Amino acid sequence: MDSVGDYISKHKPRVLDELFNLLKIPSVSADSAFSQDVLDAAEAVAKSLTEAGCDTVEVCETQGYPIVFAEKIIDTGLPTVLVYGHYDVQPPDPVELWHSPPFEPVVRQTELHPDGAIFARGASDDKGQMFMHVKALEFMVQNDLLPCNVKFMIEGEEEVGSESLGKFVKENHEKLANDIILISDTGMIANDVPSITTGLRGLSYVEVEVTGPNRDLHSGLYGGAVANPINILTKMIASLHDDNNHITIPGFYDKVEELTREERDAMAQAPFDISAYQQALDIDAVYGETSYSTNERNSIRPTLDVNGIWGGYTGEGAKTVIPSKAYAKISMRLVPNQDWNEITELFTRHFQSIAPEGVRVRVTPHHGGQSYVTPIDSKGYQAASKAFEATFGKIPVPKRNGGSIPIVPLFEDELGSKSILMGFGLDSNAIHSPNEHLAVWNFLKGIETIPYFYKYFTELSS
Amino acid sequence: MDSVGDYISKHKPRVLDELFNLLKIPSVSADSAFSQDVLDAAEAVAKSLTEAGCDTVEVCETQGYPIVFAEKIIDTGLPTVLVYGHYDVQPPDPVELWHSPPFEPVVRQTELHPDGAIFARGASDDKGQMFMHVKALEFMVQNDLLPCNVKFMIEGEEEVGSESLGKFVKENHEKLANDIILISDTGMIANDVPSITTGLRGLSYVEVEVTGPNRDLHSGLYGGAVANPINILTKMIASLHDDNNHITIPGFYDKVEELTREERDAMAQAPFDISAYQQALDIDAVYGETSYSTNERNSIRPTLDVNGIWGGYTGEGAKTVIPSKAYAKISMRLVPNQDWNEITELFTRHFQSIAPEGVRVRVTPHHGGQSYVTPIDSKGYQAASKAFEATFGKIPVPKRNGGSIPIVPLFEDELGSKSILMGFGLDSNAIHSPNEHLAVWNFLKGIETIPYFYKYFTELSS
Repeated sequence: MDSVGDYISKHKPRVLDELFNLLKIPSVSADSAFSQDVLDAAEAVAKSLTEAGCDTVEVCETQGYPIVFAEKIIDTGLPTVLVYGHYDVQPPDPVELWHSPPFEPVVRQTELHPDGAIFARGASDDKGQMFMHVKALEFMVQNDLLPCNVKFMIEGEEEVGSESLGKFVKENHEKLANDIILISDTGMIANDVPSITTGLRGLSYVEVEVTGPNRDLHSGLYGGAVANPINILTKMIASLHDDNNHITIPGFYDKVEELTREERDAMAQAPFDISAYQQALDIDAVYGETSYSTNERNSIRPTLDVNGIWGGYTGEGAKTVIPSKAYAKISMRLVPNQDWNEITELFTRHFQSIAPEGVRVRVTPHHGGQSYVTPIDSKGYQAASKAFEATFGKIPVPKRNGGSIPIVPLFEDELGSKSILMGFGLDSNAIHSPNEHLAVWNFLKGIETIPYFYKYFTELSS
Repeated sequence: MDSVGDYISKHKPRVLDELFNLLKIPSVSADSAFSQDVLDAAEAVAKSLTEAGCDTVEVCETQGYPIVFAEKIIDTGLPTVLVYGHYDVQPPDPVELWHSPPFEPVVRQTELHPDGAIFARGASDDKGQMFMHVKALEFMVQNDLLPCNVKFMIEGEEEVGSESLGKFVKENHEKLANDIILISDTGMIANDVPSITTGLRGLSYVEVEVTGPNRDLHSGLYGGAVANPINILTKMIASLHDDNNHITIPGFYDKVEELTREERDAMAQAPFDISAYQQALDIDAVYGETSYSTNERNSIRPTLDVNGIWGGYTGEGAKTVIPSKAYAKISMRLVPNQDWNEITELFTRHFQSIAPEGVRVRVTPHHGGQSYVTPIDSKGYQAASKAFEATFGKIPVPKRNGGSIPIVPLFEDELGSKSILMGFGLDSNAIHSPNEHLAVWNFLKGIETIPYFYKYFTELSS
């Protein structure tokens, strides 16, 4: 395995060139104007997997964008690693805030990355990280180092909800059979603090509608005498947190996994600069649940946030209206053992129960997903930990991520295997934002680390 | 004066025809596409005032739409009545809800008005009511019954804020000099319960902006750890009312005029059917300040209503965003002795003081106006009361109106005279809504009643 670094150095210009060709395709899944580009990206990924040495490569049709499936089976007695990633990207808007065009990748130095970073939409999320796996396979095949079987499942609808993938997984248990799922679609704490994501929060997303009078009313003639749906909605939403910022929905915390003092102390070892955090967001204080740190609040604790609110007159100037209706979109991030369907029900029942007389309330569930945890004593986690140690020279820190990837718990439910979230990006990579990038160093380090995962996972499985 | 009824009966077809010609002009001041029509309406009003017998009629240019000024001075030793009204109308939208085109007036029977009502935009607000005064003058001139001097000031920007009128009044004290201002731009309780509006509420209208992080954030990665401007805004707004729906702004009630038990008992005599009220609005309960009735809540008590709220993602589906900013438009209706500038300041100071760490708050005053009260022992009120009694056969009920006409307190400040709000419409006339109308009976009753006001006001002033 010592030749990994040499091989990568030697082939670096070509590898970057190949990645750039993929990044040049504006495969924006959310905008149908780019549908041919999304299809082109699927073909490009398929071609790269053939070139990397897969035996079978299929572009599988779905009701939406295709799923690229590929495999190289060297011995059915050996373990199988299933790599998941996606070739679609977020819209680049607002384009005017990019310092270089989002689909014309360039390498530029930055303060954090003096050796250069690749700037392009998808550089980190997820073309760049997904392509690490393609190149790592090429390396293993070329150097006869592939220790086990490998499958790839690369989708084109991750940024729009992975609808086709859910169906594909449910219908293809045998084709997708594996021992471990490997995903690089998250980040590390820092280049000198490698970390592995061990948890994702679940999600319950609802829309609420409060209806008062049957029509908009003049606030002079009716103000003070009838329930104003906006005032009521603010009161109802405000009541969902108490003075300690605990959520007040009865039963909400009943199943929440409580970490031990030891686990929390271990988490607290991860380096975190609160003043840099506040400065980056231009806020004078953080805000959240009493008795928990910032890192705990956005990882191991469930939350409730209003993501959108609207009602009444929102144009220029003034209109003295009491609207008939007011609306909000509310999402709850959930932690292990909270079931999103149950939480959605608890929310709905509670929200309706707190409506005062004079209004009617409707709650519409939008979607949701379960939380996810990888035990750090599992073979998959141990293999990833040892792989990082081999290339970073440090044991990585296990880290809960506050976000949700609803497809990951579905993989476990359908395929019975755990996912290892081995990401090489950084929080500062501006994914979903203008000037998304990935340091060249991180890109190459990912390619270098992945073969070690295969090696250790195969060893630990034997 | 007994000939009033006869004269009106005889000329009814012509008078209605003249009103219809005025109603046919779509003088929508809010929409510049109708600007020529607004100008045409001014000319039509001027022409009708000349025909009614005014000596001087001017269409006075302003920075906006013109103000029609007219007068008939019979003896400078006699009192002068200044009639105020407006020839502009609200937009007719939504047009599809009208049962007949808004600018093609027709008389149709309704359940409440078996003798027919005039359906058209402006039928009640205010062309129909303003035109009563033009025709009442014609009647008095034709029958040699005009007992005093009269001036007319009819504007074309009432529905968009009366900006030019304020300036015009300030610059024309002498021209507009008068002993009483007469306005028909409000309503009565019912045709068998005549009433005179003795009070208008004041208004303070502000916009608030809550800023959290300097950019929109992913609710998975930051949810629970930073102040979400929407959650904070709902909390801040909710805290503006206590559990009894009293407003919590310190000092807010300090100057509120408290009515005596006797006054409140007198108000409570006005007929009011709470179940009909709830049914008309399709609500199962009214809502408001503890210890006050519905009629008190929307007339003699100050209120605080959110007229608009917005922030975050409000489109279709779901987006897991914590927005950087959230906004609301908030208006307070004020009662006598509350100064709107002072209340705006109290609100601003309080709202900023309740902002938690982690957000910044900006309050922008939009506009406002003072409340207004006409004492029922004044000559103007007494003249109006006797006029109603003469034609309705009943002493009218004094009634506070919950709305605001900011120009009325300005008239008093600038011209030193009281306004008498002698309206002949009904709440059910759907002003500002589709199918605005005015019963023919009310229109004719208005023309019949107005000359009595002139008569009694002149007598009481001598």
